[in-house]
Amino acid sequence: MIDEEIDFSIERLGDCCFPSPMKGVRFIGDRGRLLYHSRYEEIQPLINASKDLPAFELAGPRERIFFNPVDISCGIVTCGGLCPGINDVIRAVTLSLYHHYGVRRIYGFRYGYEGLVKRLGNTPLVLTPDVVNQIGELGGTILASSRGPQEPAEMVDYLEELGVTILFAIGGDGTLKGAGKIAGEAARRGRHISVIGIPKTIDNDISFIQTTFGFETAVAEAHRAIYAAHTEATGARNGVGLVKLMGRDSGFIAAHSTLINSQVNFCLAPEVPFTLEGLLRNLNERLTQRGHAVIAVAEGAGQELLATTMERDASGNFKLGDIGTYLREAIKEHFANTGMEINLKYIDPSYIIRSQPANPHDSAFCLLLGHNAVHAGMSGRTNMMVGFWNHQFTHVPINLATRQRKKIDPEGWLWSSILASTGQPRELI
Amino acid sequence: MIDEEIDFSIERLGDCCFPSPMKGVRFIGDRGRLLYHSRYEEIQPLINASKDLPAFELAGPRERIFFNPVDISCGIVTCGGLCPGINDVIRAVTLSLYHHYGVRRIYGFRYGYEGLVKRLGNTPLVLTPDVVNQIGELGGTILASSRGPQEPAEMVDYLEELGVTILFAIGGDGTLKGAGKIAGEAARRGRHISVIGIPKTIDNDISFIQTTFGFETAVAEAHRAIYAAHTEATGARNGVGLVKLMGRDSGFIAAHSTLINSQVNFCLAPEVPFTLEGLLRNLNERLTQRGHAVIAVAEGAGQELLATTMERDASGNFKLGDIGTYLREAIKEHFANTGMEINLKYIDPSYIIRSQPANPHDSAFCLLLGHNAVHAGMSGRTNMMVGFWNHQFTHVPINLATRQRKKIDPEGWLWSSILASTGQPRELI
Amino acid sequence: MIDEEIDFSIERLGDCCFPSPMKGVRFIGDRGRLLYHSRYEEIQPLINASKDLPAFELAGPRERIFFNPVDISCGIVTCGGLCPGINDVIRAVTLSLYHHYGVRRIYGFRYGYEGLVKRLGNTPLVLTPDVVNQIGELGGTILASSRGPQEPAEMVDYLEELGVTILFAIGGDGTLKGAGKIAGEAARRGRHISVIGIPKTIDNDISFIQTTFGFETAVAEAHRAIYAAHTEATGARNGVGLVKLMGRDSGFIAAHSTLINSQVNFCLAPEVPFTLEGLLRNLNERLTQRGHAVIAVAEGAGQELLATTMERDASGNFKLGDIGTYLREAIKEHFANTGMEINLKYIDPSYIIRSQPANPHDSAFCLLLGHNAVHAGMSGRTNMMVGFWNHQFTHVPINLATRQRKKIDPEGWLWSSILASTGQPRELI
Amino acid sequence: MIDEEIDFSIERLGDCCFPSPMKGVRFIGDRGRLLYHSRYEEIQPLINASKDLPAFELAGPRERIFFNPVDISCGIVTCGGLCPGINDVIRAVTLSLYHHYGVRRIYGFRYGYEGLVKRLGNTPLVLTPDVVNQIGELGGTILASSRGPQEPAEMVDYLEELGVTILFAIGGDGTLKGAGKIAGEAARRGRHISVIGIPKTIDNDISFIQTTFGFETAVAEAHRAIYAAHTEATGARNGVGLVKLMGRDSGFIAAHSTLINSQVNFCLAPEVPFTLEGLLRNLNERLTQRGHAVIAVAEGAGQELLATTMERDASGNFKLGDIGTYLREAIKEHFANTGMEINLKYIDPSYIIRSQPANPHDSAFCLLLGHNAVHAGMSGRTNMMVGFWNHQFTHVPINLATRQRKKIDPEGWLWSSILASTGQPRELI
Repeated sequence: MIDEEIDFSIERLGDCCFPSPMKGVRFIGDRGRLLYHSRYEEIQPLINASKDLPAFELAGPRERIFFNPVDISCGIVTCGGLCPGINDVIRAVTLSLYHHYGVRRIYGFRYGYEGLVKRLGNTPLVLTPDVVNQIGELGGTILASSRGPQEPAEMVDYLEELGVTILFAIGGDGTLKGAGKIAGEAARRGRHISVIGIPKTIDNDISFIQTTFGFETAVAEAHRAIYAAHTEATGARNGVGLVKLMGRDSGFIAAHSTLINSQVNFCLAPEVPFTLEGLLRNLNERLTQRGHAVIAVAEGAGQELLATTMERDASGNFKLGDIGTYLREAIKEHFANTGMEINLKYIDPSYIIRSQPANPHDSAFCLLLGHNAVHAGMSGRTNMMVGFWNHQFTHVPINLATRQRKKIDPEGWLWSSILASTGQPRELI
Repeated sequence: MIDEEIDFSIERLGDCCFPSPMKGVRFIGDRGRLLYHSRYEEIQPLINASKDLPAFELAGPRERIFFNPVDISCGIVTCGGLCPGINDVIRAVTLSLYHHYGVRRIYGFRYGYEGLVKRLGNTPLVLTPDVVNQIGELGGTILASSRGPQEPAEMVDYLEELGVTILFAIGGDGTLKGAGKIAGEAARRGRHISVIGIPKTIDNDISFIQTTFGFETAVAEAHRAIYAAHTEATGARNGVGLVKLMGRDSGFIAAHSTLINSQVNFCLAPEVPFTLEGLLRNLNERLTQRGHAVIAVAEGAGQELLATTMERDASGNFKLGDIGTYLREAIKEHFANTGMEINLKYIDPSYIIRSQPANPHDSAFCLLLGHNAVHAGMSGRTNMMVGFWNHQFTHVPINLATRQRKKIDPEGWLWSSILASTGQPRELI
Repeated sequence: MIDEEIDFSIERLGDCCFPSPMKGVRFIGDRGRLLYHSRYEEIQPLINASKDLPAFELAGPRERIFFNPVDISCGIVTCGGLCPGINDVIRAVTLSLYHHYGVRRIYGFRYGYEGLVKRLGNTPLVLTPDVVNQIGELGGTILASSRGPQEPAEMVDYLEELGVTILFAIGGDGTLKGAGKIAGEAARRGRHISVIGIPKTIDNDISFIQTTFGFETAVAEAHRAIYAAHTEATGARNGVGLVKLMGRDSGFIAAHSTLINSQVNFCLAPEVPFTLEGLLRNLNERLTQRGHAVIAVAEGAGQELLATTMERDASGNFKLGDIGTYLREAIKEHFANTGMEINLKYIDPSYIIRSQPANPHDSAFCLLLGHNAVHAGMSGRTNMMVGFWNHQFTHVPINLATRQRKKIDPEGWLWSSILASTGQPRELI
Repeated sequence: MIDEEIDFSIERLGDCCFPSPMKGVRFIGDRGRLLYHSRYEEIQPLINASKDLPAFELAGPRERIFFNPVDISCGIVTCGGLCPGINDVIRAVTLSLYHHYGVRRIYGFRYGYEGLVKRLGNTPLVLTPDVVNQIGELGGTILASSRGPQEPAEMVDYLEELGVTILFAIGGDGTLKGAGKIAGEAARRGRHISVIGIPKTIDNDISFIQTTFGFETAVAEAHRAIYAAHTEATGARNGVGLVKLMGRDSGFIAAHSTLINSQVNFCLAPEVPFTLEGLLRNLNERLTQRGHAVIAVAEGAGQELLATTMERDASGNFKLGDIGTYLREAIKEHFANTGMEINLKYIDPSYIIRSQPANPHDSAFCLLLGHNAVHAGMSGRTNMMVGFWNHQFTHVPINLATRQRKKIDPEGWLWSSILASTGQPRELI
């Protein structure tokens, strides 16, 4: 539930003085709003109290735009970990800038925010339709990436030197915060630089966006590991398939891949604590009754069971303890002690999941996401990211998107469906 | 836009006297409603006029249920054309009835509504977890299907004889209408038979449901044909790839597969008329400038160009003229006349698209759809179908769902995105 | 069976005066020979009669080479229809020339042999590692193709002008014959131009080569159509799935895809005549007993049933009559007459099959094929193609390879396996 | 090179007194032999010395058979680790026994050789066409498996009790040896029990068979991990992708997946020793020159670098040290010491590779393999396995097949191609 004072309004660089060169498309009026709430019982009290209904600004092409496309340069940067579809987004942004608006100078900054720091010596790629045309077939990012922040002043210096007036930053929580700082620094200098965030998170854990690109591809790939675990588990006496999946703070990949073909018997997510005893007792019961079991565990689950350090990685995230190998050893030891012979197979697909090219759905999603990012930038919006809500693209202020991670609600429909699909008890304790 | 008198209320067989045997899940209260509208500007006038906001009843498990699961028999029937995911739905319904509620007699009627007519001699399959466990890996329907209606009285006779009190009908527009008639006949006889529709339409053209199962799989498969057309077109001088895709009344498959990798230059849908001259003129221009072109045409597009009969098929649909071969010949003839040598490759993937197993996304969607259908039936709802709206499952009265086909709005975001992606003019005339 | 006078010897431009710059690899001696025969009973009479055993020259890198790599230019041309893996071959040839031998001028001729005719105005692409690095992910050919011959004199003129001393011609029967003529014309002029054919035939119908690249990918794709046909056939009462597959003169694609999962009940190949009556009688029997049937028909099968013209296409092949639609109509009419209601679904996957990227197996095969073609060219071989026999790469004289099409032997193990898998009678008459 | 005294002759239970019930197929004469050698230079000295040419007996259906199919029971057992295609083989054997020969009692023994020991209480499954029809779509084995030997006497006791006269044993080296012991025990007792081995080894390391089923599927799946490693490596500065693949004693999976798309820069196999220093020095050079690198290491490679125990697993194999994590840490430490910042991503796809369903090629191969196993058993062959040599199926005495593991020849064409593809030096020392 969001508090009522949330500000959904989007920052703009100024009035739109130029007609859009786009032909044939339907332009979006600036007053279009998409309701944040979808449930009648959420909205009724607000109506009764005559309060404003929280709503997103709608994304889409505007009839009048802020920048004169023939004059400007634009830049694209990709930060953080890989995710299926990054190249599709680079492609969509480039093609939209080029074909829809006629922009002719498009820079692809290399190695994440490092590429925006001139003294590090990374010459940007020049992006043209020919360069990007086929890149959607490839996983990864043709611009390469890096983790961690850089000094906003240095980055704005380089943007100014190159004459970049719209910067598209593709990345997750940290990247979006960095994008906000660039927008802030540009504003402080009185420069008309639009900074548009394009949310990338394979964990699907950015708030105010229902789905992020690459998530479906990642879930499908995660399911391949679950399929293998299930095949192994059923192929041996007392087979146990244990799969570790991505999901630092949010277990969406584990949860959604659990819903495919219901081959998972225990889904463990960071949002729902469990005890080792609870898991082992239920696992024992399952093996006794059915002769095999499959466990899907998100990497951030059960961290309270591990003695973890407080170290952080380059992106500023706490380093996680390895719940996968911990459970592998704990389960083996337990059954060795109880004398039940089991066949445990441990699978950690790790980077295979995030390196694949986008599936067709994600590829189309990336196209639309990229187009809407360009429309937002050309209209002079800044310090915002493109969201997706109720099947429509929206504008979301960056400080709203980065307030907190999106998580599975243990009381919500998704986790309830997990319980219904796995048959695991609500409390694994 | 819907008119204001629409009735979203769901028919119920009576009070729920039994506690649900489900453990651990979150039960849905009967008052949960999901707003039909999502745009602020649609809802504001209704608020100002103090009108009710149209809203769907939410789907999900209820704390109290109408039927005593240990007493009842249930039935499943699959009608109409194939669609990826039917077996996943059969599986989800069977497993939910069995494991969530403890139902032990589940019939799979064979060959569509024909299987509900006793005199035709189709003995139903008995469905158990063992029978359905692996069927999600297979395309098609293990129950087989047929087209066209049967006599409601005969069908209710057989349901009564078998003691079936919940019937799940998986099918499209005609199937849902048939389900409504069965519900009506049962009501007329004062029998407590719940009839729950599960919407199946590869064309995604059922109203009041944002996405139907199998659609994503179908779009991905359609894209394979487009990929081939694009490969052929770029592999020869003045290559033209022409692909005919499903879509009788609604061009959703053609439109969504056009958005993948933007390889399509002309997307032709039933909702947006075009002239042969307009198409040929623009095609000529494209070939002259770029040396190749890809055309995706929905089977129902351009029917006004063809001299069609008024024949109907077994499902009562008008037989379409073959726009694919018409365009193939017309394009060949045109360029033969103008003296430009072209290389046209025509691809009609037809049944390949609908026969595939569901992709992981659709498979998970089918699981949830099936579960929610069972919850609806067990709670005594009837004469309704399960819908999906704003990422949540809903209850939709059958007569609402079948009022009219869902179509692409030529003024909406989807078609606008098609124009932006293809570069084709708004009017191909 | 081959006649005894066949000449397996390979034409060479001259002595090899330069040391190979390749490091670390195993060089192949020039005397390595691979037996044509593999059966003891074939070889014993030759031994008894003290005759030579027919054998291919082995392919592979030579310690001494004919051309000085730093001096030369090479060219690649792709002709005829698409086939999975062409880009992999282009890539392998380019990378081997560049990295293994240090060749720095590599031309990619565009649009088949048309690209070798200067007056047609097709400037060749310049191929470098950067250009070809990722093309293996794409179907088709980045060089584009055309059908039909060009004048050898004109082509050799252009090769001479560009200084091309090794030409790699990727194509089928006609392309190889054309390559032979180029080699002949160069020899007539006393020019040291090596012409190396790389056999490409999706039908797998080139003699003296056991498998051609792309064939496995094509068979896998063909199986998708058969899968769909089977799914449709089992999904309806008296369902008949009819699939038309590639195979003008040789039914290898139909045969091999029939062996996958044994879903085909009648496999029809050009090599094995059948009558319509025979097919219909057996189909009727199958439907009566099992309720569904799947038919896979190669496009060249049953031509004797059709009234065909004697027209030829640009490649000089006779235009085939359409056996697919002929059977579709004949079967429908037959059962309409007999009063048995059937559900026939016709699938013609056509170009989808040949436009896919190579699967991993074919991709690796293309790599080795391309490498061996380069080794052959660098060693001054000419007027030959690279073959594959008994899991090893060979040199095959072009006039041997083009003597006759490879066909299914109706008395051999493949067709016997088809009969065993389908259960169809040996004679469908 | 094989020594000359090798005995290729196949053991037979007795004379074939019954006519085969198979219709239409081509029967194989008992004198058909397939040459072991394929190179002229190997065979010429034998001819000169008037020695016998070593040759396999050809597999295939015989006109007369040993068993009367209507009388007998048959059994199938699957042992050892999973491999793509096991279910296809079970299916092919069952369908061939049933449809080709009319056998009506087919037992599927569960959990490997444990299922042949009655006192362990595993009731065999009864296999029918209905049971096996769709199992080719599933990975793993429907019969489940176990490792390690059982007492031959106990197993023959149970076979006798059940009246099983042909046993098909699907497994690797240990399984084949076990099969040989069963055959021996039956012979000792004077019982006519045919034991036919069907070679299963994901490592492709069984001698006298050129390809084993599932190998291509495994290589394609392994390539997905390499693709991910390459994507990660190119997506970061000094990216290193490190992939551990199956291959205890033979590096065929690593080698063949290295040949796909040439994304691997260092391929490490058990057959080719390397030093850590050699690898690191070359890796450093590669990173300095190209900025990224991909390493594929077979699990059995570099064992001499590890301090390993001499423990054995249930199959009797030595437990390997973990070369993957060893290299990961060693590389990280090395570059930390040298001060070069690298981004290493480690991928261990492990069980994902062997759990997939067979790809179309392997599926067809399994069909033919299963058919030929049945033909061999029905003809009274025993103590043999079905092989594949020079594109033809053969009979191989079990003691020949299990004499030694097949390995990559570091002087042969495969490793030479690896060197040519990766550019790695012949000696990584």
